[in-house]
Formats: sequence, C-alpha cells, structure tokens
Amino acid sequence: MTLLYEGKAKKIHATDTEGILRVEYKDEVTAGNGAKKDYIEGKGRLNNLITSKLFNSLKQQGLESHFIEQISETEQLVQSVDIIPLEVVVRNIAAGSITKRLGFDKGHSFEQPLVEFFYKNDKLNDPLITDDHVKLLHIANDDEISTLKAAALKINEALVSIMDQVDLRLVDFKIEFGKTTKGDIILADEISPDTCRIWDKHSDVNFDKDVYREDRGSIIDTYQTFLNKLEAL
Amino acid sequence: MTLLYEGKAKKIHATDTEGILRVEYKDEVTAGNGAKKDYIEGKGRLNNLITSKLFNSLKQQGLESHFIEQISETEQLVQSVDIIPLEVVVRNIAAGSITKRLGFDKGHSFEQPLVEFFYKNDKLNDPLITDDHVKLLHIANDDEISTLKAAALKINEALVSIMDQVDLRLVDFKIEFGKTTKGDIILADEISPDTCRIWDKHSDVNFDKDVYREDRGSIIDTYQTFLNKLEAL
Repeated sequence: MTLLYEGKAKKIHATDTEGILRVEYKDEVTAGNGAKKDYIEGKGRLNNLITSKLFNSLKQQGLESHFIEQISETEQLVQSVDIIPLEVVVRNIAAGSITKRLGFDKGHSFEQPLVEFFYKNDKLNDPLITDDHVKLLHIANDDEISTLKAAALKINEALVSIMDQVDLRLVDFKIEFGKTTKGDIILADEISPDTCRIWDKHSDVNFDKDVYREDRGSIIDTYQTFLNKLEAL
Repeated sequence: MTLLYEGKAKKIHATDTEGILRVEYKDEVTAGNGAKKDYIEGKGRLNNLITSKLFNSLKQQGLESHFIEQISETEQLVQSVDIIPLEVVVRNIAAGSITKRLGFDKGHSFEQPLVEFFYKNDKLNDPLITDDHVKLLHIANDDEISTLKAAALKINEALVSIMDQVDLRLVDFKIEFGKTTKGDIILADEISPDTCRIWDKHSDVNFDKDVYREDRGSIIDTYQTFLNKLEAL
C-alpha cells in the first residue's frame, strides 16, 4: 500500500478505503527535534497500544478523535484529516522547556492548565506562537483558536482523570488536531509517553520520554509499566 | 539628587517633588541584549530630543504618557509609574527577530499591525510570551491586556501618521507601559530610533539602531537626520 508520509515516529499509509489511513508506529525514538536519535525495538508497539487505549477512553467520554481502530500490534486505522500545523501543548505542572523559557521551577503547579501553541515547522524549530501569530500565518481564525483551546482543555481534564485513577500525575502533553472534509476540528496524531509527561503521584518516578531524553533507563520497561497501569483500569 | 535606577540607555533620578522623576539619557548604546556595547557622544541628547518631540506629538493627539517636559538637552521630567514588565512590540512590516522566528521575509507588510509581548527579564533574555503567560505570571489581567493592546495600536496609528508626513515608514517599535498610583495604564519609557525601526519610503535608507547593530555608519548622523525630519513637521 502507498506510503503517504513518514515522520519521526510513524508512517502513514493509504488504504483501499477513501478517507481512511493506516498508521504504522515505528521503533525510532528522537529527542531535541532529532538531535538525539535511536532505534528501540518494541517502542512502536507500545505507543500504538497506549494511543489506541487512550483514544478509546476519550471516545467513551464523548471526545472524538481521528482514531478508528487498532488493527495490529503496531498499526491502527484513522480517519484522514488535514493536520493543523500546530503543536498544542497543555501544561498542568512546569517541566521541560517552560522552566528554561519562563523560569518556573520544575514541579511548579499552575493555578490553571496552560495551553500553548507551537508552530509545526522543523526549519524554524517549532517556535512558540501567540494567537495573533496563528491568525497572521492563516493557520486558524478566532473561532477555530477557541475551539482548539476548549478541546485541549477538555482532553486534559479527561486525561488527568484517567491518570489520577492509576495514581499518576499528568504534567503536560502535546496534541495535534486535524480538519475533516466537513470542516470539523478533531483530535489527531497520538497520545503516548512520547508526547506526554507523566509522573508517579507518590515518588519522583516518571513514565515518559524524559527517561530517554535524560538517559535514565529503559524506555521499553517504562512504557510497558505505564501500559500495564492503563490496562488495569 | 538620588539615582533610583540605571538602565542600558537611561538613568532615573528622584526629584524634590513626590511622584516626579528626572530621566537622564545616556550616551551608551547596546545591541543584542548587551552583547555589543559602545559609548557614543551625543546619542543621549538625540534620544531625549526625539522622545520629547514624539511624546509631545502623541499628547496633542490625546495619547497620554508619563512625559511631563524636557528640561535640558539630555533630561526630561516624567511622572513616576510602576513599569509593567512587558516589552510591547508593534510590527507593521517584518524585520529583525520575527524574520528569523517565523520565517517572514524582511520587508513583508503585515495585513494588520501585529502586537507582541516580551517578558522584560534579562536573565531569561526577554522571551516572547502569550496572553495566557502574561496572566500566569501575574503581569496583567484580561482587561489590562486589552488596554495594553488597544493603546499600542492607537500609538502605532499616531506614529505611522507622523512618520508618513516626513516620508518615512514605521516598520516596528517597542514601548513600555506603567501604572499610575490611581491604577491607570499609561505609555512610559521612550520612543526613539533606539526602540523603533524607521525606513525611508523611497529608498532602503533607515533611521534607527539597525545602523549600529549592523555597523552601517554613524548613528549620530542617522539620528540627527531623523530629528531634523521631525522638526520640519
């Protein structure tokens, strides 16, 4: 089948059905916009299983995404959408770039969840942009910006609740949205430990890509433990 | 008299009158957040004269600032305000940091003026921040953000019109605002070729600190020519 797109962590293939794509999760892992890169067998499987699980959980709570179904250990079918070129980041607790950028201490709890937009553009290094930049770049209009922010906050609420049930704290996450042919904006891409920061509630153990970024152990063990927790739900 | 504060380009002194400060413009010029630094005799005088002229012009158009009066070639009296720690940047044409940050070509005209907030924090290198960051950092609330943006756009309109009358294009500028004891938000700091980009309408000559940043001639000649144009108004 035709490969339509290959990114850092996934391949997107056409299917025989118009409007339906096959996503294949890869075993590659990168950090720092590709500065650090490795092949880690089993990573793709785990992110596919975790993303499928989380998209299903969101669906049960009435939060639609592009996800249709998991079809193998490393593949899922999704609805074809036009990806909006924004990395939408939601932060509950300060960690990562915001600690350097704005001087918040790692672990600082925000009074309310913070939504940030980053312009998906590898050449520009995915810069932070404001609502006015989003409009200027013709990425989204005022209504669409409101829709994106409201959806991101609802997804955050649902994910926080899921994590809470397994004694985890959702620190932050990055999501992407797409537009359907009807013009609806829905959640797309993935939700996995590659795109979230997840901390244990009672210790300083974490279940996310920071383990890889900071060379602190096996991401396979880490992601598998996280998946086990989700499956115990 | 007591020196209250010394910045890169100005000293702020107390006066005998409560609520009134004396601003002394220095001959120092810096670029790249202090990475490039020089002493250029006569620069302080020019920026004092230009800022006084522009604050007076804005006042005539009903746009209040902290400016009271020019009292010497290098000094002015201003109302004491609590400076809001934001660099408010208005852009009509792409130049400088936004060309690198978002990939706009230098000279690109924006469909409408763009207002950006940068967090005044030398340690963090004055990062770009969003409205949500402004609120999170307790710099300003929603109403104050709206006031700042509306004021910045009105000031832009007035300055564009002034420059237009002397065949210049206002590319972009940085302003700061302060809060009075009554809680009113008014324009503060300075408006000079140190804080604006000003291009000739019919040539690629410019009348601003880029001449210094890019080592393209005498900033004294450049600023004096700009002042002469303003005085011909």
